[in-house]
Amino acid sequence: MKASGSSGKEANLLFKQAYEYMVTRMDRGEWNAHDKLPSIRRLAQELQVHRLTVFRAYQLLKQNEKAYVKEKSGYYVSPSKTEEQVPTGHTENNRSFPTSSALKNSLSEIQHIPVTYQFSQALIDPNLLPNLFLSEHVKKVFDIYPKLMGTYSSAQGDVELREYLCRYMVRHHNLQLAASDLLITTGGQQAIDLISRIYIRPMDPILVERPTYSAALDIFRQQGARFIPVEITPDGYDLANLERLMEKHKPRLFYMNPTFHNPTGYTVPAAQRKQLVELAERYRCLLIEDDAIHEMYLDQPPPPPILTYDTEGWVVYLRSFSKYIAPGLRICAVMGGAHVIKSLVTAKSLADNGTPLVNQKMFLHYFESPRMQRHLEKLRIALQIRKEIVEQELASTGWRWVSPQGGFNLWLQLPEHIPVDQLLEECLRQSVSFIPGEICDPLKEMRSWIRLSYSFVNEEQLRDGVRRLIDIAGGYTT
Amino acid sequence: MKASGSSGKEANLLFKQAYEYMVTRMDRGEWNAHDKLPSIRRLAQELQVHRLTVFRAYQLLKQNEKAYVKEKSGYYVSPSKTEEQVPTGHTENNRSFPTSSALKNSLSEIQHIPVTYQFSQALIDPNLLPNLFLSEHVKKVFDIYPKLMGTYSSAQGDVELREYLCRYMVRHHNLQLAASDLLITTGGQQAIDLISRIYIRPMDPILVERPTYSAALDIFRQQGARFIPVEITPDGYDLANLERLMEKHKPRLFYMNPTFHNPTGYTVPAAQRKQLVELAERYRCLLIEDDAIHEMYLDQPPPPPILTYDTEGWVVYLRSFSKYIAPGLRICAVMGGAHVIKSLVTAKSLADNGTPLVNQKMFLHYFESPRMQRHLEKLRIALQIRKEIVEQELASTGWRWVSPQGGFNLWLQLPEHIPVDQLLEECLRQSVSFIPGEICDPLKEMRSWIRLSYSFVNEEQLRDGVRRLIDIAGGYTT
Repeated sequence: MKASGSSGKEANLLFKQAYEYMVTRMDRGEWNAHDKLPSIRRLAQELQVHRLTVFRAYQLLKQNEKAYVKEKSGYYVSPSKTEEQVPTGHTENNRSFPTSSALKNSLSEIQHIPVTYQFSQALIDPNLLPNLFLSEHVKKVFDIYPKLMGTYSSAQGDVELREYLCRYMVRHHNLQLAASDLLITTGGQQAIDLISRIYIRPMDPILVERPTYSAALDIFRQQGARFIPVEITPDGYDLANLERLMEKHKPRLFYMNPTFHNPTGYTVPAAQRKQLVELAERYRCLLIEDDAIHEMYLDQPPPPPILTYDTEGWVVYLRSFSKYIAPGLRICAVMGGAHVIKSLVTAKSLADNGTPLVNQKMFLHYFESPRMQRHLEKLRIALQIRKEIVEQELASTGWRWVSPQGGFNLWLQLPEHIPVDQLLEECLRQSVSFIPGEICDPLKEMRSWIRLSYSFVNEEQLRDGVRRLIDIAGGYTT
Repeated sequence: MKASGSSGKEANLLFKQAYEYMVTRMDRGEWNAHDKLPSIRRLAQELQVHRLTVFRAYQLLKQNEKAYVKEKSGYYVSPSKTEEQVPTGHTENNRSFPTSSALKNSLSEIQHIPVTYQFSQALIDPNLLPNLFLSEHVKKVFDIYPKLMGTYSSAQGDVELREYLCRYMVRHHNLQLAASDLLITTGGQQAIDLISRIYIRPMDPILVERPTYSAALDIFRQQGARFIPVEITPDGYDLANLERLMEKHKPRLFYMNPTFHNPTGYTVPAAQRKQLVELAERYRCLLIEDDAIHEMYLDQPPPPPILTYDTEGWVVYLRSFSKYIAPGLRICAVMGGAHVIKSLVTAKSLADNGTPLVNQKMFLHYFESPRMQRHLEKLRIALQIRKEIVEQELASTGWRWVSPQGGFNLWLQLPEHIPVDQLLEECLRQSVSFIPGEICDPLKEMRSWIRLSYSFVNEEQLRDGVRRLIDIAGGYTT
């Protein structure tokens, strides 16, 4: 969607967001076919934008045949062309099943296309896990807790696991926490979802990195958030600009992934971390620090989590532990102030009544084992080798990237003449997949970028697949 | 909350709902301290209620010190007394942490109080599960699937499990389904939550049984639903009244639990089941059929699920399988039309990216075993004995109930002179817990009823605990 005659980048952003908000309300079935749309004046007031912004968005709706105009009356919702009408002889009203187009998970759509050269999954190759040991080891859990299969966890999570993780945080980050400051969720994704349900209302402005984790964007969109992008670079954020955004938009939260950032691999330097907490306090903006792969560094450990600088409870820390340990178990810990955790525990209890106890006990049992540390060291070496293979293959392409110090991905800028959408289509046909930068961008631009994950396939496949990708890209000439 | 001068039960219900809606918006932080409330005219239009209803609700807000009036200007939000202000020297605006009072899980609050005589948990006593067999049996899963711990499930759920459940539905209910018509969730609670996120918008009218499962009410409240109660009796529903409600309110869905209903134990008779589907089709109202304990009958199997009468896709069937098999695994299957399942799969992928594969494989492995059927038979006998113990003990009290043909609960009507809230308080002090009827009632009445679960404690504790309960109740004289 491109707006003509924009009076500046910011106005254009507001216009885009207002339009997206309207489409979302239609998709969700809140604005149904032939409903009258709110008056421009009223909606402008509700969204706190200029009336002209609403007018332009309404015009675009009309242009896209999503709305129509009745003389002297106003704008009305057009009947959707894609709505699934259920045939029945007894129609008393014209309700159809709601469509699901407000709900999207772009990432998962790409990842679920089966291909040989799977570079869209930022996951550990299952062959790199100590599968045999792990299986034998977790079996013991059933002897230690004989009634495990019949027992529910509390909504907050197993207290033995939470206490263990407290000791872990002291040992690794010199951070004192109580078990009550932790919530166990089924993976980091659930943590993001619970947070967004509590803190985001439709049209709430929130800060998100640009680019960022695309599934998080989809979750925030589902809640109707308005994105305020914060550029992330190899040097971190532009803090002066960040302060200006916090002051101006008063966002409720900043969703950030400061360590081996997804998709770029960048790490926000230690020097900025304390300042970020000061900004959060000053502008009362929660920092949602997603730290999914802290341990996946190559040469040296990353700076301490931003959480360690927090004294007032403005950081909510999402630590996904299972991703590189036993991803199938789906264990994440949320750490934060008492007020935040209390709300999240209730949301969790309504959402699924607690992560299954069996997963928590299996995770704990393995996480405590000395074998786990040895596994991590082997994993780091394997990832280093895979990264080097990709970088060697790409060396002659002229594509640009910053070599990451950890994580699973390369964030590549392709020459402008390569149309990434067409490239992806052709790659999928030839059994290669990657993530187009566009879906990682809250502004849906960044059309010359791609994320290439080197963690999921073996060395030989990696080499072959990257060669095939380069080969296909070579077909687009300047 | 009691309204004076009500012009009828329905008007009073609308008033209550409007008030609750306003309080929820304040609790959620959508209406903040010193914000001007919408004009009465505008809000009445938005909620589709009479202006007088909004006026009365505003008056009650004022009376309860949740709103104040400025002369010639309107109503404003009062600053909350309970908001947690975070002290900081750098306050640039007066935002506080959002409070969580819009989020409630009344059931889980009571269940988490540790007591000896636990009658508030409608769960199987872990001692009734074949724990030793189960533990040894599931260990084999790790040999069958050596990379299980490192593998993610698809968001929709393991295809092997879904295909098995299709065969199960043919065998047990002569119902043909495809694996694509199923979604695996982490327990029935998550299924209810996902459905409510897709189908319920603030102030949407939905049909709920009265009484019903209280956690479901809390989930629907979180989405801002407006409850239209449908009385459930030992004979099912009053279908003529149900039709009137569907015609009048055009509800999007009816959340029902027609088999060994929670909390009453009633079962909707076979004769009504087909008619319910006809009503659903005619009024385009989804039937959410929660069938959590289908197998937990005493003498004979219940009537077939309502789903089996559905041809047009108006029934969404939630079959919790793990509740009496291996509750710790938390496995539920949602079955429904393609359009519903498609939306739910996306919502599930955003919520937690799929139920852990290890849980699904462990469940399947046990569920397929011949041992499972023998376990079910033993369980039915054990539950029958426990039910009889409670009924024997209660025989002389004069309390009233309908003896259930399955399930885990007795729904008891106590004499009017016993104040159930005080009784619960005193019982908890004396280590007995139960569920007060009030939280199961969408209208928050039913103050003489309690739900007593006989499934969770052993026979001796059951006898002792019920005696203690009767003893405490005897302290309240007419």
